[in-house]
Amino acid sequence: MSAAAAELGPVLSAGGPALAAGLARTEERLAEVAAGHGPDLEQHAAAMLTAGGKRLRPVLVFLTAADDADGRLVSAAAAVELLHMATLVHDDVLDRAPLRRGRPTVFATGGRAAATATGDLLFSRAFAELAATGSEEAVSHLSAASSALACGELMQRADAWLAGVSAERYLERCRLKTASLFDACCRLGSLFGGTPAQSAELGAFGQDIGLAFQLLDDVLDVSGPVERTGKPRGTDLLDGTVTLPLILARAEDEELRALDLRSITDPALAEEVCDRIAATGALDEARGEALEHVAGAKARLDRLELSPDRARALRLVASGVVERYA
Amino acid sequence: MSAAAAELGPVLSAGGPALAAGLARTEERLAEVAAGHGPDLEQHAAAMLTAGGKRLRPVLVFLTAADDADGRLVSAAAAVELLHMATLVHDDVLDRAPLRRGRPTVFATGGRAAATATGDLLFSRAFAELAATGSEEAVSHLSAASSALACGELMQRADAWLAGVSAERYLERCRLKTASLFDACCRLGSLFGGTPAQSAELGAFGQDIGLAFQLLDDVLDVSGPVERTGKPRGTDLLDGTVTLPLILARAEDEELRALDLRSITDPALAEEVCDRIAATGALDEARGEALEHVAGAKARLDRLELSPDRARALRLVASGVVERYA
Repeated sequence: MSAAAAELGPVLSAGGPALAAGLARTEERLAEVAAGHGPDLEQHAAAMLTAGGKRLRPVLVFLTAADDADGRLVSAAAAVELLHMATLVHDDVLDRAPLRRGRPTVFATGGRAAATATGDLLFSRAFAELAATGSEEAVSHLSAASSALACGELMQRADAWLAGVSAERYLERCRLKTASLFDACCRLGSLFGGTPAQSAELGAFGQDIGLAFQLLDDVLDVSGPVERTGKPRGTDLLDGTVTLPLILARAEDEELRALDLRSITDPALAEEVCDRIAATGALDEARGEALEHVAGAKARLDRLELSPDRARALRLVASGVVERYA
Repeated sequence: MSAAAAELGPVLSAGGPALAAGLARTEERLAEVAAGHGPDLEQHAAAMLTAGGKRLRPVLVFLTAADDADGRLVSAAAAVELLHMATLVHDDVLDRAPLRRGRPTVFATGGRAAATATGDLLFSRAFAELAATGSEEAVSHLSAASSALACGELMQRADAWLAGVSAERYLERCRLKTASLFDACCRLGSLFGGTPAQSAELGAFGQDIGLAFQLLDDVLDVSGPVERTGKPRGTDLLDGTVTLPLILARAEDEELRALDLRSITDPALAEEVCDRIAATGALDEARGEALEHVAGAKARLDRLELSPDRARALRLVASGVVERYA
């Protein structure tokens, strides 16, 4: 069992056979999509699509479904994973990343042109999957999320190197670039058989855990440990991406406030700045904010009438986003 | 009047007030989309979306519509233009292009990260526009075209520098990367109020003129004249993109057959190779193939029951794709 699968183990147990069957059918569907667009895509996308990953977004689709026998859920689950992967492939081009999950990226094997086109193709296939459900609302949810992801990315690039960015603007960016897709996953799940009120509450649940997920990601980038996260500390600092730990630490530490982010050009200096951020207590504070969103998410579950197994599985997912390491 | 508008002048006259009104509403809608996603997108996309261009794809949507009063046509027209622009923005990143239509590209003003995200956002908005029509079939047409565009791009990159690529494979690439969207435009137009038989025939009309469009583009890259096309001759050769003129010329000229494309590294040499291709008569042959597709497209129109004005306008569009210079 892979580390990712192990991480989801308790969720899979609580989700029961319907979740396991749904995820298995999603894997099959992703493999079909990878194989169905000629050898050029297959070469580039198959490794990406079949390499695993936590499949957290498909899990949310299935666990929020009112009728988990609805075949359209597999289309929705495949669609959100395709969209997520499209953004990863484009991110890897922008970051010139050689590896993802320990395997060569599409950028590394095919170059930036092939990787840009592969990302575009995965975007297209995400919408094709959802169009096949015949639900206009489903397509609208995905296109809203997809637009938000791109707006979040634009915002992040616009704010790069701006150390004085506000916590509010940081949280808005997290909402756009991460939470919006978690929101869409939960709305898509509840779309097939659920009520509008459930859908809105589950969407808000997705928003909350999405924000917690991104907050924790940004904490881990400063805290490590490297042997668990699998990447050096301070990569955000080296990219000029200002996150909550730095925003909070700057309020406490005058030297951090005076620091020009563009002067952080080597990994050793980035690690030093990470230590300095940690010394202010900003990591605990940011982690606390993530935990608050998890608590908020769980409180929403109490207001919904869910089966005990379903509620337990969603609680485990909520806890999982702040307990993971990578 | 811009050069692009002048080029479409006769089509606009033949299309009458319904076409003019549809195009005007499409412009308004594109401006709304550009303004509706925050200052970051507006900065990058507004110039792109409102800079004009021939709007050939929206024209096809309106001219193939069975019921030109259907408000969903504006959504469809905006969607195809948004998708087209998304691919242009990504192409400009890959080509590191400083200018498009005489204006700075998103890549030039915002860098590759902002341009990649802007392209992704335009993709998303294209699907959002169509989802708003409530037509699953419309979304399917667009996602099929969007996937084909990306597959064509992948194919082009996979075949780069392969001088021995076949004419069949070249035509398949043109079908994917250009003709599929023309096809989708015509199917989208005929979707609202048309019959399935009309839709298929109009789609095939779109395919034919799309192929002719791409064939002529590839001829112009070799023939110029530079003062009309606005770009140096031989840019495809410098990119390693093998097109029909070279494929045909290699069959006639042994020295061209022996040429290693990777040795064409400077513009002056690329122009020499262009002259050599022209000397074989390959340009006339490729132009002839484009004209055959235009004739085929017009023959399809004869099999459809269209109003005389509509048929005349579509004929003018078909002729226009091989009569244009840039």
